[in-house]
Amino acid sequence: MKKYNVGVVGIGVVGTEMVRLLLRRNFPIKSLKILAKHQRIETIDGQDYPVEVTTGASFEGMDFAFFAGTEGDKGASKEFGMAAAMGGCTVIDNGDDYRMESWVPLVIPEINPGVIGQYPGLIANPNCSTIIALMALAPLYSKNKIRRIIASTYQAVSGTGAKAVSELAQQTKSWSRTEEVSSSVYPHQILFNVIPAVGSFVDHNGESTEEIKMRREIHKILGDYSIRISNTCVRVPVLNAHSISLNVEFENPIFPQEARKILHGAPGVRVVDDVMADQYPMPINASGIEDVLVGRIRKDQSVENGLALWCSGDNIWKGAALNAIQIAEYLIKRR
Amino acid sequence: MKKYNVGVVGIGVVGTEMVRLLLRRNFPIKSLKILAKHQRIETIDGQDYPVEVTTGASFEGMDFAFFAGTEGDKGASKEFGMAAAMGGCTVIDNGDDYRMESWVPLVIPEINPGVIGQYPGLIANPNCSTIIALMALAPLYSKNKIRRIIASTYQAVSGTGAKAVSELAQQTKSWSRTEEVSSSVYPHQILFNVIPAVGSFVDHNGESTEEIKMRREIHKILGDYSIRISNTCVRVPVLNAHSISLNVEFENPIFPQEARKILHGAPGVRVVDDVMADQYPMPINASGIEDVLVGRIRKDQSVENGLALWCSGDNIWKGAALNAIQIAEYLIKRR
Repeated sequence: MKKYNVGVVGIGVVGTEMVRLLLRRNFPIKSLKILAKHQRIETIDGQDYPVEVTTGASFEGMDFAFFAGTEGDKGASKEFGMAAAMGGCTVIDNGDDYRMESWVPLVIPEINPGVIGQYPGLIANPNCSTIIALMALAPLYSKNKIRRIIASTYQAVSGTGAKAVSELAQQTKSWSRTEEVSSSVYPHQILFNVIPAVGSFVDHNGESTEEIKMRREIHKILGDYSIRISNTCVRVPVLNAHSISLNVEFENPIFPQEARKILHGAPGVRVVDDVMADQYPMPINASGIEDVLVGRIRKDQSVENGLALWCSGDNIWKGAALNAIQIAEYLIKRR
Repeated sequence: MKKYNVGVVGIGVVGTEMVRLLLRRNFPIKSLKILAKHQRIETIDGQDYPVEVTTGASFEGMDFAFFAGTEGDKGASKEFGMAAAMGGCTVIDNGDDYRMESWVPLVIPEINPGVIGQYPGLIANPNCSTIIALMALAPLYSKNKIRRIIASTYQAVSGTGAKAVSELAQQTKSWSRTEEVSSSVYPHQILFNVIPAVGSFVDHNGESTEEIKMRREIHKILGDYSIRISNTCVRVPVLNAHSISLNVEFENPIFPQEARKILHGAPGVRVVDDVMADQYPMPINASGIEDVLVGRIRKDQSVENGLALWCSGDNIWKGAALNAIQIAEYLIKRR
């Protein structure tokens, strides 16, 4: 079996999980290079990894470069991504710098791998909320076109990065010791609170960058710009795994049992839908697994052909690191 | 000023806040009787209150009886409420036993006080999520009829009662001490989790009792059964104050600025809507205040005449105890 020279650029929450998942999934690695701004030794699961400083030369002879930049982090992929891709390395970028460029494929391997051309160059990994929502919706869309989506999210702090995870943990400990709770990553306390603002607000139309991204990326991935979307993105005091409440309007009638059957057969999806036995998707169960959980599937009686559903998925795994690696695995298989 | 013999039946989370609010609002009290299942002394804010055992005779000579039963708690109001009302006491019931009875007024004083007849007898206090959503929606509805509401809730544990508040606090402390986190009130850990199930599931249509209540009560309070409603009720790790994400479709065009203006003038509502300054409703700010906070007001571009908004309100105050007392205050003023 052919093996590949692999690079992970950035070693925060997403980069660390990329390394873990590359090993866990037995990715055919010839060499693994971890790149970041500063040289150091990074220990992951007891194993020491040298971290090299990223330069243009870092990508010479590299087959796959996973850029682990998080949302809004204008960094390595903007500086090194294009040059690496031009030099023959397949760049898979988790950041949002290139997603909406018309020449960049925005890919969820289970949904639209066909958009990747013969010479992939640079491929963008979608936003975590986009991926988790579409894992539930795309299998249904392929049977019955979607006309409208209303989404309200319940997003974990890990999506903001390691500092936000530490902040929630620290606030939890401070509260338990009846010490003062302080915030620096978020503008407000996140412990025991809910913040209806994810990303930032770029102008006065009232939508957050996360809400805009999710809408645009759903359109691009499904290749259907006629779907009307309204979404509210909300941060909740959850360490890891996003959840999304969805109200969906289809072109043709759809029944919950039919939707369950379609989703049962969908790769990367697990239906968890037995409310009488207290079984439904929850972040605590979705964290650290590869599948996106879908449940609370029921008729939305407020509209013709309506369905209400609820999903939870690991925003760092399927919502970021895992999806990126699956893109590379798809390309290896396709070759 | 005339003073009244007042009773509070049940002294859990809601009953305790009823006592606090009666004092805080200088309710014209001649006598205050606290009733419950067991005799004891209850200390509220350093003040000792004798708690008497509720019997049929407890309501003799009483002017207002506030039944503080919480959702699904088939208790005192079912046993004593009707007899007390027949005996001439005005019963204001926070439980859900009588809300949907056609002869029982279901009242939010700012919205539909007119439904209370000449001899009130028994008046029902609506569900907390219903009240918080309608405080934001009813002022808009009175200017522009609502055709459809999509709601996803972010509900605090205080809505379940004192034991749930203790459970979240205990889980927080256990986690901080790296001890095992155990659950008994909820079927799953609530700390760092989100549970898309509020109330219970009565049959296999897939809707929770909370979702059904919220829908039916909105219809009854607005007196408009043509409004189509779909809602998803979700428990979040917040100690107090519920939040709701709303997508609303109106009969006629409505602009965010117009909605803000209407809500600015609405009693019991505070518009908090400056996203550029990180100002939006949050449970941490809505807890312990009387107003319901409304913000994130923006166009829902996915539908004609659509508006998206977000609100947070104290589920124990305006969502329960305060609303009940305001009903009594309205009746006193009306006399």
